[in-house]
Amino acid sequence: MICIFCEIAARERAARIVYEDDRVVAFHDVNPQAPVHILIIPRDHISGPLDVDVANEGIIGHLVAVAARIARQEGIADNGYRLVLNQGRDGGQSVFHTHLHLLAGRRMTWPPG
Amino acid sequence: MICIFCEIAARERAARIVYEDDRVVAFHDVNPQAPVHILIIPRDHISGPLDVDVANEGIIGHLVAVAARIARQEGIADNGYRLVLNQGRDGGQSVFHTHLHLLAGRRMTWPPG
Repeated sequence: MICIFCEIAARERAARIVYEDDRVVAFHDVNPQAPVHILIIPRDHISGPLDVDVANEGIIGHLVAVAARIARQEGIADNGYRLVLNQGRDGGQSVFHTHLHLLAGRRMTWPPG
Repeated sequence: MICIFCEIAARERAARIVYEDDRVVAFHDVNPQAPVHILIIPRDHISGPLDVDVANEGIIGHLVAVAARIARQEGIADNGYRLVLNQGRDGGQSVFHTHLHLLAGRRMTWPPG
């Protein structure tokens, strides 16, 4: 099955990439929900947060570290941001390749959806 | 300064703990925003997601792996869940000890706040 995020990671599909390293790629969400809305994905295909365990938790932590780096790069570190991972139907997951949402540029409200 | 989450991790403050290991503690949020609303925190004090870097990203990934384990334990794995980390004012961060929100038991909406 074609995975659009694997394709973006492989540069086979266009995306507005803001950061990449050997383990992750970050790009603008095509349906932004805030003035800044960036997705950070592992290059390795992990279906969702439910598939994270001791074997691959390191890469998930790296997504959060990269979010901090991007926050500084984008000038949103001081005001803050929200990070979201969705799993399955109740989480509202739409693409089944784990992606960390980084949302900023406005005051996020509570509850988080 | 007193950190209430450090106190919970040290068992010096009461909380409805659902899981703990040598690195993390998980307990019910006192202000639930969904039928299931659990906070997962590192025992080590990390102020927020902005303070995550290569040195401590491993523990943050572990929070997500523990969320998957708790999801199975609580019977919410199949329907899914949302994970949230808030940083600073725009993120709506209220306690300055990093905590991963695990929300489930209803369909979470979009945008995430």
